[in-house]
Amino acid sequence: MAAAQLSHKFHKHIHLKWDNSLPPVHTVKSGEEITFDLLDGGHNQFTATSTAADVPKFDLALGDPAIGPVYVEGAAPGDVLRVDFLRLETAEYGWTAIFPGSLNFGLLCDEFTDHGLKIWDLKTHAKDGYAVFKDGIHVPLRPFLGVVGIAPEQAGQFSTIPPYETGGNIDCKHITEGSSLYLPVKVPGALFSCGDGHAAQGDGEVCGTAIETPMKATVRLTVEKEKEWVVSPHYVTSKDEKVQAESIGRGSKGYYAALGIDADLREASRKALRGLIAWLVGEKGLTREESYMLASVAADLKIAEAVDMPHYGVACSLPLSVFVSAPYV
Amino acid sequence: MAAAQLSHKFHKHIHLKWDNSLPPVHTVKSGEEITFDLLDGGHNQFTATSTAADVPKFDLALGDPAIGPVYVEGAAPGDVLRVDFLRLETAEYGWTAIFPGSLNFGLLCDEFTDHGLKIWDLKTHAKDGYAVFKDGIHVPLRPFLGVVGIAPEQAGQFSTIPPYETGGNIDCKHITEGSSLYLPVKVPGALFSCGDGHAAQGDGEVCGTAIETPMKATVRLTVEKEKEWVVSPHYVTSKDEKVQAESIGRGSKGYYAALGIDADLREASRKALRGLIAWLVGEKGLTREESYMLASVAADLKIAEAVDMPHYGVACSLPLSVFVSAPYV
Repeated sequence: MAAAQLSHKFHKHIHLKWDNSLPPVHTVKSGEEITFDLLDGGHNQFTATSTAADVPKFDLALGDPAIGPVYVEGAAPGDVLRVDFLRLETAEYGWTAIFPGSLNFGLLCDEFTDHGLKIWDLKTHAKDGYAVFKDGIHVPLRPFLGVVGIAPEQAGQFSTIPPYETGGNIDCKHITEGSSLYLPVKVPGALFSCGDGHAAQGDGEVCGTAIETPMKATVRLTVEKEKEWVVSPHYVTSKDEKVQAESIGRGSKGYYAALGIDADLREASRKALRGLIAWLVGEKGLTREESYMLASVAADLKIAEAVDMPHYGVACSLPLSVFVSAPYV
Repeated sequence: MAAAQLSHKFHKHIHLKWDNSLPPVHTVKSGEEITFDLLDGGHNQFTATSTAADVPKFDLALGDPAIGPVYVEGAAPGDVLRVDFLRLETAEYGWTAIFPGSLNFGLLCDEFTDHGLKIWDLKTHAKDGYAVFKDGIHVPLRPFLGVVGIAPEQAGQFSTIPPYETGGNIDCKHITEGSSLYLPVKVPGALFSCGDGHAAQGDGEVCGTAIETPMKATVRLTVEKEKEWVVSPHYVTSKDEKVQAESIGRGSKGYYAALGIDADLREASRKALRGLIAWLVGEKGLTREESYMLASVAADLKIAEAVDMPHYGVACSLPLSVFVSAPYV
């Protein structure tokens, strides 16, 4: 049976704010697959033939459109929505922009005041897994979705640009095909949406854009119970080294990570660490002190994004290869 | 010819402050190897038989002792000192501590107010490359030095606990055996010192300690000219996946990274990014804008340490596998 498909071609499927009063555009059962035909993070304002001259015309108010929301049957506040990323296909082109400094977008936006645009060919070398930045410089392709989220607890409209504890524009490059994301459900049905395909990105997304591309994404949405430690986005990466941003080393068990989201980078780091500790205590049965020590010697603080203001996203990421026998595996 | 050896057994070789007026304890020619027999980061106050009851007696004022300084012939202000890590051997034990909350040490020190100590056996499974945290949980061993630095430009005494732009307690787990570190020389002879052996650590060193261990380290010190972009510690990692904290993926070319050091985590991130951009412009001939974009799609912001207050260390790290042909390789 073909998965249901939601598409940006239907205007009603697009939203630019998180809002728990949005009517669902589709309903799925827990465990059902669904395919999204997504606009890129710039609302397809750039195309394969755009040039730097088009950048000043870019309307940031159209940024990070999400497709949805999808109502997941059985999801209730206090549950966790697991999102399995089954297939992520980029378009045949992508783009990376430096926006004018006046937009205050980018970790060094005060120092890069001119605008710029790079159009990427994502077709010619796709089968070899890379795109050409310029002759002699190849960037490995690791497709993922920048925006993956569910409706907030609070009433009102919230920009899709920053990430939240319910997800959204988390811009976390590690959640590639074969990975799973866990989000804390705040409203009945969870109200899932996604968007913002990236063909590749570094941790931080420092200039404010990745290799942005329209994407076709198939995900499976599953309601899970009794994961009370998921108070912000958690994820477990693919075990497949080929689709990981960095391969795993010492076997391919992937990583488990908690994301901390906060307007302060240090507080985001502390939230990420608390999240990993809560998982080690709740899922693995370690003491808090053991968890803190294990994180110190084996888990990594990664700045997932430093540009989606006013919120930073930091991951505290543990290689699952540290767990070698029962009761941990 | 055996390398010269400096040892903590000679009290005069130990210093607890960075101070450009310290008399050198040894002189080497540029390109010469030297072996250091180092105290651990806790000044060997803990041993293989210590218990948690010993933690409250720990004197933090003795923390992060460095051995040196070594005068490198020909090094002058404006030069860069390259430190090649040739051999890094741990002792047969190590330790990880949670210090009492009153010491304000650790990213969650306000939430972990009890003290704790874990003694590690670094001998039994060393040949298999791991240590046992507890039954069923193994941590891979990736030895590196937490403290690697040279004398500051300013006169006076500076604690060895925080890192500086001249290095010091950078606690950067990626600089394992086979890696090279670049430091900006501020005084004649550079005045190199090191210490604080770590058998393993996560990015962030979140509880404040790694697997701390006395270490025997052999390094090669070489003066380099015309690397004006090195205004803070830069490094290139080993190409050997086995000694990398994370293996490389897409071939084993290692990473090039710039460290940003600052009292503010966001500013440390910005300095790290500026450093990588300056290297891409200076060494690879990219434009600033190309460099900013390439960093956004392919370089990672890693929080090297979040605990050596008052200074954070953030790395902006690019996999060298993106460079595939001339003029970049």
